[in-house]
Amino acid sequence: MANDQDASPGRGGLSRRRLLLGGAVAGVGAVTAIAADLALRPPAPSASGGVATEPAAESAAATSDSGSAASESLHGGNTVPFYGRHQAGIATEPQAHVTYVSLTLLDHVDRAALTRLMRLLTDDAARLTQGRPALADSEPELGTAPARLTVTFGFGPGFIARAGGVAPDWLGPLPPFGIDRLDPAWAEGDLLIQVASDDALTRAHAIRMLLKDTRTFASVGWTQAGFRRARGTEQSGTTMRNLFGQVDGTVNLTPGTDDFDELVWCPDGWLAGGTSLVLRRIQMNLDTWDRLDRGGREQSVGRFLSNGAPLTGSGEHDEPDFTATTPIGFPVIPEFSHLARARSENAKERIFRRGYNYDETPLGGSVSNSGLLFASFQADVTAQFVPIQRRLDELDLLNEWTTPIGSSVFAVPPGCAEGGFVGETLLG
Amino acid sequence: MANDQDASPGRGGLSRRRLLLGGAVAGVGAVTAIAADLALRPPAPSASGGVATEPAAESAAATSDSGSAASESLHGGNTVPFYGRHQAGIATEPQAHVTYVSLTLLDHVDRAALTRLMRLLTDDAARLTQGRPALADSEPELGTAPARLTVTFGFGPGFIARAGGVAPDWLGPLPPFGIDRLDPAWAEGDLLIQVASDDALTRAHAIRMLLKDTRTFASVGWTQAGFRRARGTEQSGTTMRNLFGQVDGTVNLTPGTDDFDELVWCPDGWLAGGTSLVLRRIQMNLDTWDRLDRGGREQSVGRFLSNGAPLTGSGEHDEPDFTATTPIGFPVIPEFSHLARARSENAKERIFRRGYNYDETPLGGSVSNSGLLFASFQADVTAQFVPIQRRLDELDLLNEWTTPIGSSVFAVPPGCAEGGFVGETLLG
Ligand code: HEM
Ligand code: HEM
Repeated sequence: MANDQDASPGRGGLSRRRLLLGGAVAGVGAVTAIAADLALRPPAPSASGGVATEPAAESAAATSDSGSAASESLHGGNTVPFYGRHQAGIATEPQAHVTYVSLTLLDHVDRAALTRLMRLLTDDAARLTQGRPALADSEPELGTAPARLTVTFGFGPGFIARAGGVAPDWLGPLPPFGIDRLDPAWAEGDLLIQVASDDALTRAHAIRMLLKDTRTFASVGWTQAGFRRARGTEQSGTTMRNLFGQVDGTVNLTPGTDDFDELVWCPDGWLAGGTSLVLRRIQMNLDTWDRLDRGGREQSVGRFLSNGAPLTGSGEHDEPDFTATTPIGFPVIPEFSHLARARSENAKERIFRRGYNYDETPLGGSVSNSGLLFASFQADVTAQFVPIQRRLDELDLLNEWTTPIGSSVFAVPPGCAEGGFVGETLLG
Repeated sequence: MANDQDASPGRGGLSRRRLLLGGAVAGVGAVTAIAADLALRPPAPSASGGVATEPAAESAAATSDSGSAASESLHGGNTVPFYGRHQAGIATEPQAHVTYVSLTLLDHVDRAALTRLMRLLTDDAARLTQGRPALADSEPELGTAPARLTVTFGFGPGFIARAGGVAPDWLGPLPPFGIDRLDPAWAEGDLLIQVASDDALTRAHAIRMLLKDTRTFASVGWTQAGFRRARGTEQSGTTMRNLFGQVDGTVNLTPGTDDFDELVWCPDGWLAGGTSLVLRRIQMNLDTWDRLDRGGREQSVGRFLSNGAPLTGSGEHDEPDFTATTPIGFPVIPEFSHLARARSENAKERIFRRGYNYDETPLGGSVSNSGLLFASFQADVTAQFVPIQRRLDELDLLNEWTTPIGSSVFAVPPGCAEGGFVGETLLG
């Protein structure tokens, strides 16, 4: 078999030789000799050439939890549809891993270039999320297990200005808050890509393929990676826990309901069917938090740590009773608790939270470098997010242990149909 | 119910007041007032007080792949035994996530302190790996889903010297290799902790609990995090792929075989039943790698990218035929391929590889900051690892795209029985 393969004509030998001889030689003496040798050899045609064209088989059967394996339930083939009125990755049940990449457009990039860029990115996202390799995918085998991969794009003011479009009035830095200690390392960007999957290798490969598209258009401002529980660690639908150990995400808008549609999707203009993303990097001081006893920690949120029930109830989803008082007259759910402060009397002031934990290498002798990638989607940042953040800024016991160190806002365009591209309502 | 709770006596109020008033006030004006208020309130006894003492229920039923859920196969409760002749986390089928933490002992730490430290760490590792909270666990709920958590300890020369023990002659920096571009940021350490789990939140929590134990004994030198496919993305037992897309780990020692036992576990002295860990951080230049065509990439390793079969075969585990030649007389598996170079004629020169991918924020305009956390376990570094690395240093086409930037070696002591502690054969 090997000889059969080697008998085939040697296309590719020249370009390989050029690469090997022309590339930066890393100081390894043997390399030149190898390169010459390799350039002379007829290449063995890859037995795996078919992979780039027919890997959809695995994902075609998918989108269900019951895998094909005898004893294991496999989820690598599960896919989330890419095309649609809304971008995927928003109403999608959160995957185990996320990375947010913020890009800064290069000077020369104009409206026409943005269109080219978004067509490229859309095409690759459409393929990768369905378990098909990106165009010119150099590692097609890494893309065959999407594990619910989604790719979601957001635009900053710089992107919209170059596109010649009108930015929504809520786009741009949030008003300053007293609690903020913002690090310019996590500043606003021009283009955001949210890549999420239940599999970290799939995520790494997707990001890489997408960033290859952006090379000649933009540089990477920052990337922020986060995680939740692995798929299958707990029953799906279990509310996540953050690194304080709190059940986090109990009261939230529910995808598929009228409330969600009205409060999350923008109603008109080029953003119709789109939304906004507020991404805040909030450091959580686990060291000082741990010094507080359990009762104090529960009062700071107004919920029990065991199961997230309000301090006036026993089940996670019990309605909190803000009127209940202790025998000596204090509210059972303290007025300064995060729960009491985050909740609004105005039903329009609600947001869809889709946060992740982050946990990076501790710096400078501290024991942790951890926190929450707070992410919320809402139709209108000013009307929905800002009032909540303002109330929390004024008073929220959690502020004692949490510090916003990064903040950015993006306009998230609607989805597109096959043949279209994300951003077409702005650029089309 | 809420009133019932609040009627209970207010123990804890004083210490909480001290904390809140005495703690660093982060510039939030309202905090002092809150603190006073909170200090006056009788605390609501936690409805979750029982969690710290009885969370073993979930993990007790575990260690099997078939979860308890109706439609999902849950694996969060799966546990790997902690006690035993060997430490867990070596012969254990690799989990999806790993973090290696290297610690530098503080000046004052002597033999007695090392014993205290290892008793503390052993105790917490024994608990956490079985889904029980660590002693003084501040977030016990984060520890109830071990998802095959293992904690493995390794000692550097500094540790052994302070313990007054004799270091194996293979311990210490590896001989210098021509391909090395070692960054002191990943230098050798005194104490290594390898924490691995199928769940990233479990890993984060375990690391945090363990590092709390070490605070007064050591500072963190570095942490290195890695990943493989998520549990359930693929059939378990599937050989991992690295970020070059290669099937990586096909030819390896197999836990449970005589070869493995002989070549991995040290035979005598305080290391009997222990082993050595070589950890190399090897950067992989995905950008230049991608410019090589598929045939060239396959020749650089000697295996097909599609399924990892040797270039002379069709199945991943087919025996490579190094004598097969092309019609014009070149070996089908090139002599400069990684496969040809990594394989030894001496059956004693084999190692047990247990590597992970890493993928960090790209720096300075590059498109990736990625590579392999190459980790190998072997009874004797000098006799087994060094000859292989030396051959690869001399000649290996993969060197063109890979650069070792970190290197460290640790002596991994044997496991212990219940009541004992890891390191007791050195310190006991
Ligand atoms: C590290 C920072 C934060 C932590 C640890 C945190 C944690 C929590 C927790 C444990 C809950 C209760 C469970 C739930 O309903 O999800 C909660 C609720 C909530 N949080 Fe946060 N949160 C943080 C920051 C924020 C921020 C920045 C906002 C928005 C500006 C926010 C808005 C909300 C809202 C709207 C709720 C639901 C309140 C309700 O019951 O109506 N949180 N948060
Ligand atoms: C980033 C660096 C590296 C990459 C990408 C890499 C990749 C691979 C691949 C794809 C294989 C073939 C499949 C398999 O049998 O696992 C392989 C085999 C092997 N590698 Fe590496 N490797 C790297 C570094 C190293 C290092 C540093 C060593 C030891 C010093 C090593 C030792 C071996 C051994 C012993 C084999 C098995 C050879 C045999 O078939 O007998 N590798 N490696």
